[in-house]
Amino acid sequence: MQGVKSFVEGRSPMAVDGRRRVISLFAAVAWLVPSHESLAADVAKPPNIVIIFADDLGYGDLGCYGHPTIATPRLDQMAHEGLRFTQFYSAAPVCTPSRAALLTGRYPIRSGMAGNKGRVLFVHSTGGIPASERTLAEELAAAGYQTACVGKWHLGHLPPYLPTENGFDRYFGIPYSNDMGLISGRGKPKKGTPLPLMRDTVTIETEPDQRFLTERYTEEAVSFISEAAAAGRPFFLYLPHSMPHVPLFASKRFAGSSARGLYGDVVETIDWSTGKILDTLREKGLAKSTFVFFTSDNGPWLIYRQHGGSAGPLRGGKGSTWEGGMREPGIAWWPSHIPVGQVSKALGTTMDLYTTCLAMAGVEPPTDRTLDGVDLSPVLFDEDVPSIRPFFYYRGPELFAVRYGPWKLHFKTQSGYGQRTPELHDPPLLFHLEHDPSEQFDVAKDHPDVIATIVEQVERHRKELTPGDPVY
Amino acid sequence: MQGVKSFVEGRSPMAVDGRRRVISLFAAVAWLVPSHESLAADVAKPPNIVIIFADDLGYGDLGCYGHPTIATPRLDQMAHEGLRFTQFYSAAPVCTPSRAALLTGRYPIRSGMAGNKGRVLFVHSTGGIPASERTLAEELAAAGYQTACVGKWHLGHLPPYLPTENGFDRYFGIPYSNDMGLISGRGKPKKGTPLPLMRDTVTIETEPDQRFLTERYTEEAVSFISEAAAAGRPFFLYLPHSMPHVPLFASKRFAGSSARGLYGDVVETIDWSTGKILDTLREKGLAKSTFVFFTSDNGPWLIYRQHGGSAGPLRGGKGSTWEGGMREPGIAWWPSHIPVGQVSKALGTTMDLYTTCLAMAGVEPPTDRTLDGVDLSPVLFDEDVPSIRPFFYYRGPELFAVRYGPWKLHFKTQSGYGQRTPELHDPPLLFHLEHDPSEQFDVAKDHPDVIATIVEQVERHRKELTPGDPVY
Repeated sequence: MQGVKSFVEGRSPMAVDGRRRVISLFAAVAWLVPSHESLAADVAKPPNIVIIFADDLGYGDLGCYGHPTIATPRLDQMAHEGLRFTQFYSAAPVCTPSRAALLTGRYPIRSGMAGNKGRVLFVHSTGGIPASERTLAEELAAAGYQTACVGKWHLGHLPPYLPTENGFDRYFGIPYSNDMGLISGRGKPKKGTPLPLMRDTVTIETEPDQRFLTERYTEEAVSFISEAAAAGRPFFLYLPHSMPHVPLFASKRFAGSSARGLYGDVVETIDWSTGKILDTLREKGLAKSTFVFFTSDNGPWLIYRQHGGSAGPLRGGKGSTWEGGMREPGIAWWPSHIPVGQVSKALGTTMDLYTTCLAMAGVEPPTDRTLDGVDLSPVLFDEDVPSIRPFFYYRGPELFAVRYGPWKLHFKTQSGYGQRTPELHDPPLLFHLEHDPSEQFDVAKDHPDVIATIVEQVERHRKELTPGDPVY
Repeated sequence: MQGVKSFVEGRSPMAVDGRRRVISLFAAVAWLVPSHESLAADVAKPPNIVIIFADDLGYGDLGCYGHPTIATPRLDQMAHEGLRFTQFYSAAPVCTPSRAALLTGRYPIRSGMAGNKGRVLFVHSTGGIPASERTLAEELAAAGYQTACVGKWHLGHLPPYLPTENGFDRYFGIPYSNDMGLISGRGKPKKGTPLPLMRDTVTIETEPDQRFLTERYTEEAVSFISEAAAAGRPFFLYLPHSMPHVPLFASKRFAGSSARGLYGDVVETIDWSTGKILDTLREKGLAKSTFVFFTSDNGPWLIYRQHGGSAGPLRGGKGSTWEGGMREPGIAWWPSHIPVGQVSKALGTTMDLYTTCLAMAGVEPPTDRTLDGVDLSPVLFDEDVPSIRPFFYYRGPELFAVRYGPWKLHFKTQSGYGQRTPELHDPPLLFHLEHDPSEQFDVAKDHPDVIATIVEQVERHRKELTPGDPVY
């Protein structure tokens, strides 16, 4: 009863729209005229933005999220210097839709990028992110940001869909998953199309040595930061790593370095990489003017056993709508803006990054479409308690579950891989995620009123939802 | 193969005995003559020692060990200022033997305190810790320390076995578990003997209001620290909390404060309490002269559902020899002596606290008996890699499993509660705990040589072991 009370009566809606619109005109134009930049007050200056997006990293895979044998001192330090979310979600349990959500601020079903039966784009796919979507990069570029995507794209690898068609000035990376070339997820040779390593729209290598991918991405990212800093306009770096998605590879420098074995070596390489980015920002004097966010696209790919990660205390992994499939590490860093040493239980999602980054940049978000993200600035800067809002767990185009306040209602469940059809739950399963983070104790029968409230939210969502044409 | 190689050839045994014996005579006598204390160099001065021992707290129940909704800012800060172990063990999966191990530095089977079939001492028990054991408190008291036990004793509640008979100058607390009185683990009234709250050897209250237990223990601990500081001799405070063992109670101040519900309220009270202890040390100017260690007696009592804790990524809980039953948070703090911000994967056990504390105090440990603890000082101060040594997982008087290097071999398994007889494993199950912390992937058939090496360790242990007469 308390749950319903707190989420129905207890809190007033946050004036998200209001906040979004309170944009200093000064801030909005300050860096459009680079020569005037030094005149702008530091607080009003739009920050550089760096989003680091690991692939298949689990909730429990970092030291600061409790992993016993993966050492991530740089990410732990980043968390200690900033804010660590404990209830942060990707908007899908697999790659393609998760990335679409991050870059559009919308549930992937709206853009048609939800995937069929929870699948992703493959080498034979001919589609990609629709031109009608307004990506975060497009919005920031239009407002004067320098933009780069370095790493795994996976939103369409044919020319019309590449990063450079979607707001990024430059691109360097593999446009889809690293198991889609000549090496299988288990690290064995297989038939197929060699992995393309692209610069902008051109394939510059095929089947690159994956041992060096993370280091090459890092080098590219550091170059971009250095060049962008010299150009004097703010920049947006989107760094979606190819790892720790299988097949796993580590360079000589990191191979054998982790007590956790190869998977740990790979995560520790990403830890090193993140440290390198932060060091570069510090060296360039950009630490106080750069917002950095670290998260992952979905949970650990458990069927790969020791080559898959850990969701820590959470149930399930990649491909499922149990918490382990979609709840992720989320670390926000912006020295002297985000207070140090924060741990936040506030709900956050990758879609919120879209809205939050636009708000930081002083950019009005598109008003001609539904956005699902909210501005997380109150959580990051003010320690405000955000209002309660629903979070919808989609597997492909199907709604499987809903979170509202501390409650999660499952209509369907399906393990990520190996279970061919979903299990339907009627009555649905209800878990109190904050009391029972591991989703062990169904309390549906004790809380019919909670269920009714959540079902209302679902009906409202279904009414307003216009699915995009499915992209394959 | 690498595993065997690393643990058989790769490292030389640490000269633990040698280290232990290098005791500055100056240090050993400095505070025996209080008036000379100020003349002693600070580094050579034996520190005050505080051991905080939670009850049934799981590996995953603190913020710094990855719990999503239990807020433990003070313990997180303590870890950040000191060293956090990720592979620290209690020596038994239930209360009584775990406490015996901590205070004697020996596997509880040696003292006869192992318990019958994994059980503990009950209200009708007539035995307790044998007088022949040399407790940590006795050793420290003999060397001039002021000593106090505040909280749950559970090593015998009849007069010959109380803390004041075992080296403690004073005692305040409930001498056994908080579900052994008139309230059941589920918080319901039940028949029985009212819980005694004792001061030294006298019951001063019966069935005290459990909402205030942690706060009363804290108040007592703070008083002891204040008085001991004034007396000018070093002190040893052993603070075994009664909580978060069921039944759970929180005072008005903490009730409803945690997003995790009542269990979280109770853990957050212990977090507050730990902060209060550290604050007191700082206020008295004792932070740099006090070694504080925080851990728990065994894993979470899972059958109590939301009233039980979480082992995080680890398998099993209280009562079992799966990792969740015996691996615990372990946080070491001693400003300006233990370097800040350390996370250590070194093996540590509660038995090592005995040996480590004696080494810090400059006290020669007993030589007339086998001690199982080693001095962890190299881990705490030098970041040395300790030598590989076996760790034996006992359930009651039976050896169920062995850890050696990263490997764990299970001869028997049994869930903590609800499984009446152990499952025997022949061949035994083998897990690589550092690659596979959740004990999911039995790799026995790939590593016969590892198994042979571990079996040798077991044979050696069995040959030298003389079990004590069982205590009931």
